[in-house]
Amino acid sequence: MTETGGRAAAGTSIRPLDVIIEKRSGGEHARDTLAALIDGFTAGEVPDYQMAAWLMAVCWRGMTSRETADLTSAMARSGDMLDLGTLEHTVDKHSTGGVGDKTTLVLAPLLAALGGTVAKMSGRGLGHTGGTVDKLESIPGFRSDLSEAAFLRQAREVGVVVTGQSKDLAPADGLIYALRDVTGTVESLPLIASSIMSKKLAGGAKNIVLDVKVGSGAFMRTLPEARELALAMTGIGIHAGLNVTAILSNMSEPLGFAVGNAIEVREAVACLGGGGPSDLRELCVVLASQVLLAAGLAGEEARVRAALDDGSAYQRFERWIAAQGGDVTRLADLPLAPDQEQVRATTSGVVAGVEARAVGRAAGLLGGGRSRKGEHLDFGVGVLLHAKVGDGVAAGDALATIYHRGGRGLEPATAAVAGAFEVAESATPQPLIIETGLR
Amino acid sequence: MTETGGRAAAGTSIRPLDVIIEKRSGGEHARDTLAALIDGFTAGEVPDYQMAAWLMAVCWRGMTSRETADLTSAMARSGDMLDLGTLEHTVDKHSTGGVGDKTTLVLAPLLAALGGTVAKMSGRGLGHTGGTVDKLESIPGFRSDLSEAAFLRQAREVGVVVTGQSKDLAPADGLIYALRDVTGTVESLPLIASSIMSKKLAGGAKNIVLDVKVGSGAFMRTLPEARELALAMTGIGIHAGLNVTAILSNMSEPLGFAVGNAIEVREAVACLGGGGPSDLRELCVVLASQVLLAAGLAGEEARVRAALDDGSAYQRFERWIAAQGGDVTRLADLPLAPDQEQVRATTSGVVAGVEARAVGRAAGLLGGGRSRKGEHLDFGVGVLLHAKVGDGVAAGDALATIYHRGGRGLEPATAAVAGAFEVAESATPQPLIIETGLR
Repeated sequence: MTETGGRAAAGTSIRPLDVIIEKRSGGEHARDTLAALIDGFTAGEVPDYQMAAWLMAVCWRGMTSRETADLTSAMARSGDMLDLGTLEHTVDKHSTGGVGDKTTLVLAPLLAALGGTVAKMSGRGLGHTGGTVDKLESIPGFRSDLSEAAFLRQAREVGVVVTGQSKDLAPADGLIYALRDVTGTVESLPLIASSIMSKKLAGGAKNIVLDVKVGSGAFMRTLPEARELALAMTGIGIHAGLNVTAILSNMSEPLGFAVGNAIEVREAVACLGGGGPSDLRELCVVLASQVLLAAGLAGEEARVRAALDDGSAYQRFERWIAAQGGDVTRLADLPLAPDQEQVRATTSGVVAGVEARAVGRAAGLLGGGRSRKGEHLDFGVGVLLHAKVGDGVAAGDALATIYHRGGRGLEPATAAVAGAFEVAESATPQPLIIETGLR
Repeated sequence: MTETGGRAAAGTSIRPLDVIIEKRSGGEHARDTLAALIDGFTAGEVPDYQMAAWLMAVCWRGMTSRETADLTSAMARSGDMLDLGTLEHTVDKHSTGGVGDKTTLVLAPLLAALGGTVAKMSGRGLGHTGGTVDKLESIPGFRSDLSEAAFLRQAREVGVVVTGQSKDLAPADGLIYALRDVTGTVESLPLIASSIMSKKLAGGAKNIVLDVKVGSGAFMRTLPEARELALAMTGIGIHAGLNVTAILSNMSEPLGFAVGNAIEVREAVACLGGGGPSDLRELCVVLASQVLLAAGLAGEEARVRAALDDGSAYQRFERWIAAQGGDVTRLADLPLAPDQEQVRATTSGVVAGVEARAVGRAAGLLGGGRSRKGEHLDFGVGVLLHAKVGDGVAAGDALATIYHRGGRGLEPATAAVAGAFEVAESATPQPLIIETGLR
């Protein structure tokens, strides 16, 4: 966090009204204009009402890929830029968010085992998806608040470090997002892409793979939308001189079987030991291979699988967790909530759908997710699926086990999980990996 | 000002974010939604940044005529509503603003002489056009700050009263306009139409003629834009149960010869005595006839002309001015600024254009107009044109006289007036009245 972003450096003076009118009229902003607007807004000189009008004009008129890249770069430079220049083969992954997505837990040590350096700041969960830092904190003793020096030292020595996101990383993004959230300007491709990529640019990794989720459990519900977002984001990264590649993956049902915090760590541990759900393993192998190859490392899929199967990924995982203070003696059986409830099939047939969003909501209702920032989480609660799309079930079979604590949120959570399952005469399972190598 | 508008009465609770998203998505707002939004904004409960996003969404998606009418009605009810119910044949005129437009000074007593009641609140000038109240205040002793009781008594007894606009009349309009001005959301047909008509609705007159100006000196530069605005405004008025009709008139050159404050009163006095410039007279006759007929009064153009020619309009003017404290002994020769400068033709030919906006700007530069609210005016300065479009001139002829005080603003004003004249080999004068009877 040594380079300080160009507020004073940009220094171009603009009239925000002129910028609004330029975008409203369908015009294209110059790089300096965007830099001055973002710097002015971050400094509190451009008032919320002008920024809100500009954001709505962007929703209306859109932005060229050059404008989007310049906007993102201005947002990234609005605070500290993480300098990973002293580290080799820095790799990172970003997912647009899904239910049961514990890939970072697997991918980070897997990449380190294959020569990459993962020095990552990760978010906390909000809404129906969990955050990586929350999952890690379900490991007793795990610390996510490292100093900059400790962060860089661990990256160098262990090859993996994951902490919570600093407020000083792309602060413009936080300010803009808060305003978008209350002004109906969330849904805009250039604004979504710049929000995600500004944090990646500030995060300092040179090689990035983006996992853009498609389907009912994802932010992007349709394939064309998801592909457009993926290309917008890789375009920004390439414009910034990074090696960025994207894949599209299916998020109509949860990833793996486990949805919660501790229960997802247990599943990730199984995957790191060469086992675990096949969809989780497949996604991790593809993501790892894509980003290692982008970084110029030997990342053929067979090598990646070998690192899971020969224990080298799991060994790196233990070193990582231990380096951040976590208790590695009980990673495979982190304590779950003491009470269990089964959700059973009412008819026989084939599982045709497991609505990811409903399962994520259930985990939240049990106390495992947040509806407001800063809420305390119950790491032990969660949902363990026993059947996924394509599996045959008989009436009375357990479809899922709900881990709860004294019945908190049990009733609506059970209803949500029961309602998430669609049992029919037949099913058409969708491929997990829809497309790779987008850029 | 006895009915108090429905802030509490509307009382519907809305989430401003939902309203923004509804408009952003191209949806149509219900009447209650618009009422709640306007009431909430006027009460300071809807923040500026949400209103700004909504205004930009309106610029983007537009509004149906029903929505525009409901918005206008909500804005009109945001403060006091003038109750003219005890007066007969209440008539009013609104002009979208032009240079040298002193029609209200002529029209108000003219309409009263023909059986109408003019109880009008009028604005002050800002920018390149002058305000009626400013012009009236150039008459020594004239008072524009009457109490409500005095206002209504004079309307009943004299048939004419004109005061400055009360802050309590459609306060939502003032608040919204101030926000539009700084968020690039001024140019939107439903927003322009609702702004104008909210004050008319709150003003209480039942019969209204709208004079929509077209051309380089007007807000609407092209005929289709002007026609669209006229129909949007009459639609609002008709929806509110008023008799509203509109005309389109040419504002590519100034109206009449005089541009300033006292100098325009002098020209209006000439017109009220049956003389004055022919374009001013023609416009006043048409506007008077249109609104009198709308009000069910005998308003044939011949009758209107007779009221100017037989002195009855002028007599009513004197009674009106005297009732508001004005000195009626010197109306025809109100003092002008002592210093004069001629602008002369540099070539011979025919005047092909007199750029109205430039002449208006010149009067402002001399001290006769405001660039900021509340600025003190010099009533005596101004510009008197000697030639208009179609007039032949020889090199050296005086095109205009500039009345200034000790050279203040003289140099740029002279340049503006000189630059406003286009002298060519031929000219194609445009008709003054482009269309009447729009509704």
